[in-house]
Amino acid sequence: MDLSLWEATVDPQHHLLVGGCDCTRLAADHGTPLFVVDEKKIRDNYQAFDRALTAHGIEQGIYYSYKTNPVPGILRVLHDCGAGAEVISPYELWLALKLGVPPERIIYNGPNKSAEGLKTAIDHGIKLININSLAEIDHIEQLAAERGRTVCVGVRVSPGVGWGAQFGLKLENGEALAAFRRMAACPHIDPQAIHFHLGTNLQNAQLYQSALAHVFELLQFIQSDPGLHLRYLDLGGGFGVPTVRALENREIKLNTFFYKPYHPPSAAKIKPVCQIIEDIAATFKALCLRFRIDPPALLFEPGRSLTSNAEILLTRVGDLKTSANGFPIALLDAGINVARPITFEYHEIFVANRMAAPANQRCGLAGPICTPMDFFLKSKKLPILHAGDLLAVMDAGAYFTSFANNFSLPRPAIVAVFEGRPRLIREKESYDDLIRLDRDR
Amino acid sequence: MDLSLWEATVDPQHHLLVGGCDCTRLAADHGTPLFVVDEKKIRDNYQAFDRALTAHGIEQGIYYSYKTNPVPGILRVLHDCGAGAEVISPYELWLALKLGVPPERIIYNGPNKSAEGLKTAIDHGIKLININSLAEIDHIEQLAAERGRTVCVGVRVSPGVGWGAQFGLKLENGEALAAFRRMAACPHIDPQAIHFHLGTNLQNAQLYQSALAHVFELLQFIQSDPGLHLRYLDLGGGFGVPTVRALENREIKLNTFFYKPYHPPSAAKIKPVCQIIEDIAATFKALCLRFRIDPPALLFEPGRSLTSNAEILLTRVGDLKTSANGFPIALLDAGINVARPITFEYHEIFVANRMAAPANQRCGLAGPICTPMDFFLKSKKLPILHAGDLLAVMDAGAYFTSFANNFSLPRPAIVAVFEGRPRLIREKESYDDLIRLDRDR
Repeated sequence: MDLSLWEATVDPQHHLLVGGCDCTRLAADHGTPLFVVDEKKIRDNYQAFDRALTAHGIEQGIYYSYKTNPVPGILRVLHDCGAGAEVISPYELWLALKLGVPPERIIYNGPNKSAEGLKTAIDHGIKLININSLAEIDHIEQLAAERGRTVCVGVRVSPGVGWGAQFGLKLENGEALAAFRRMAACPHIDPQAIHFHLGTNLQNAQLYQSALAHVFELLQFIQSDPGLHLRYLDLGGGFGVPTVRALENREIKLNTFFYKPYHPPSAAKIKPVCQIIEDIAATFKALCLRFRIDPPALLFEPGRSLTSNAEILLTRVGDLKTSANGFPIALLDAGINVARPITFEYHEIFVANRMAAPANQRCGLAGPICTPMDFFLKSKKLPILHAGDLLAVMDAGAYFTSFANNFSLPRPAIVAVFEGRPRLIREKESYDDLIRLDRDR
Repeated sequence: MDLSLWEATVDPQHHLLVGGCDCTRLAADHGTPLFVVDEKKIRDNYQAFDRALTAHGIEQGIYYSYKTNPVPGILRVLHDCGAGAEVISPYELWLALKLGVPPERIIYNGPNKSAEGLKTAIDHGIKLININSLAEIDHIEQLAAERGRTVCVGVRVSPGVGWGAQFGLKLENGEALAAFRRMAACPHIDPQAIHFHLGTNLQNAQLYQSALAHVFELLQFIQSDPGLHLRYLDLGGGFGVPTVRALENREIKLNTFFYKPYHPPSAAKIKPVCQIIEDIAATFKALCLRFRIDPPALLFEPGRSLTSNAEILLTRVGDLKTSANGFPIALLDAGINVARPITFEYHEIFVANRMAAPANQRCGLAGPICTPMDFFLKSKKLPILHAGDLLAVMDAGAYFTSFANNFSLPRPAIVAVFEGRPRLIREKESYDDLIRLDRDR
């Protein structure tokens, strides 16, 4: 794939540069594995998203999905750009408040909200709590009454397309409507929004458009009630990037048993976010006209599309093995402990210290942990690898840190780069950190 | 499954007791999710393993596999019983030394050992470093020469049965033999062991017996060299427990799409560890006789079989949803963040506050994280669940803590129970702990 997709470059020594910094130098200075965050790319991503919305004159709000990459140094950049916070746990809510996000710029979602999280949200008067079940209404009403507060509440609906299961109240069987009816009888709840979230890494507007069509029937029904006026339609996130795609089970089997490399996503097939938003906006406006509804403001909760391609993982080849079929296996110093998404998504990988070397050798990639689960893939076309080579795993900015664990190893440092200057934003864990909470240590 | 498999009991209020402690009381005192470790069960497991070996007069050593559950309060119990440490990373090696394990009771394994780990191992003169590639021999020889040390080294072999891929040097193509030849020319390396590790949760001795038959040919070849005498045969771990089994892809699909509950493992089909060891010992002795080899000492690296059934995870039902097919879905406060093995292994689950309730309702179980990946299973026979119910996930003593991450939430506390007395061995993470290493927080 073309490096310009990440706005990365190569210097005359054939080293990969990110944010103007030489990756081999970053690795030498900070050790590997190492996360590198391109601050300008985050800002560019945010502004592109924001421009796409303002271009259509939509009253809107952008709330970064904290769970995608909850690192303060990254969140501060997004908040500085103007992003609000979408949180799904008491911890994320605490973090948003700690980072100084105004309560009216915080949305609280999630399938099993704790009393602790709800109390904090109500006490601070955050913008919106999106409920996920009927039981949550009673719970919120009770907590709000105890506090003498009125709470702004949205209803996460399951519109029959996209994600369902543990999420949302179904439109088709009337659950979602029942939620609004129940809230109408709650003196401490102000119903303000319909919310849905359809999937992850969505590559075009189809699901959003289909969900909107379903949701507008509910919206019309609610707006016809003189006592109710919904201010927001919260479309969630799920916007994809052109450089990542989910792997299918069949591909994984072909890779595992027949060493068939995964084919990269085709950037041409994938609509850029601004185009997806244009399609959504067109449908939204048409529906407002058709249903004669005053347009509510649109809220968005993007995660991956703002940070995925703004972060990479640097990992070094430590040793090489030969598989039963004669293919080389590179053993890396990063494994499923810090790079779990590689096991279920396509991620481009470059040899950061030899960017001119042709990628014509099929090679397996495994991590340092002593379990066969720590195998990323059996075959990928890469240059012939040597011990000491530095690999750059692209698109480490979504879900890598969220899934990172301490399976036998500490978690890596995170460095932000901006205009050629690196800055440590999270230290590597020390060994002592890993047992700091243990008695008898 | 029968509670006696875990040596757990039920009190007259139908509450689950572990180590003599009421689980509902532990949950009330420490909050949920909560890990509970039964110290006596760990001791019993260790002693059963040890007795099985001594019953056969085998010269042996037991080295607990740290990666299975690297919690100091648990490791100290095992070391107190007499276990050595099997480590696979510089961190685990550091932890073993910090816990006061004598270097001669430490074995260092792993597919991509770092220079840091090897230096520490050599400086402390640990019992054994098992190499995983030919390149490691040169690396160790160089580091040992720099330090004027002689290092005891074993060769991890891939005997053609069980795990291969990134692990071991193949027997069949002569790689393993080549490793011993290369070591013979290394003045600072003392070749002492053949090592293999065949799988996880193995339910009988067959793989071990098959691997031994292959390995003895190499052993005879090596012992025929007057300059070489191998002292150890390291059989690794992988011993199973009767209460856990891996889920097959087909079962997972049937559960996901047709709500077919997983069938529990059949304890009757699974040989107890003492029986597996008896079978291994019989084969080992017969092979020593047949090949006329002075029996080397056997080393074992058990993990799951010592701790799996000695720990449970307590998690509370927060909310209930209804799936598209009308089945209830219980939303728990523990998800893939702390209980990932439930997604790929069968684990028994009890309602700890209503142990007498009949398990006759199919129910799905999901976690608190706002992603469809946080779904354990679509259907399991359980009592009809209510918000507030306390679930006990059995066999949380292997790989739960290793895989635990901070996906939107802090990691739980760990309580050890012994003769009715609970003792906190690891505090729950605070929110501040999660950003302690961040600058700009």
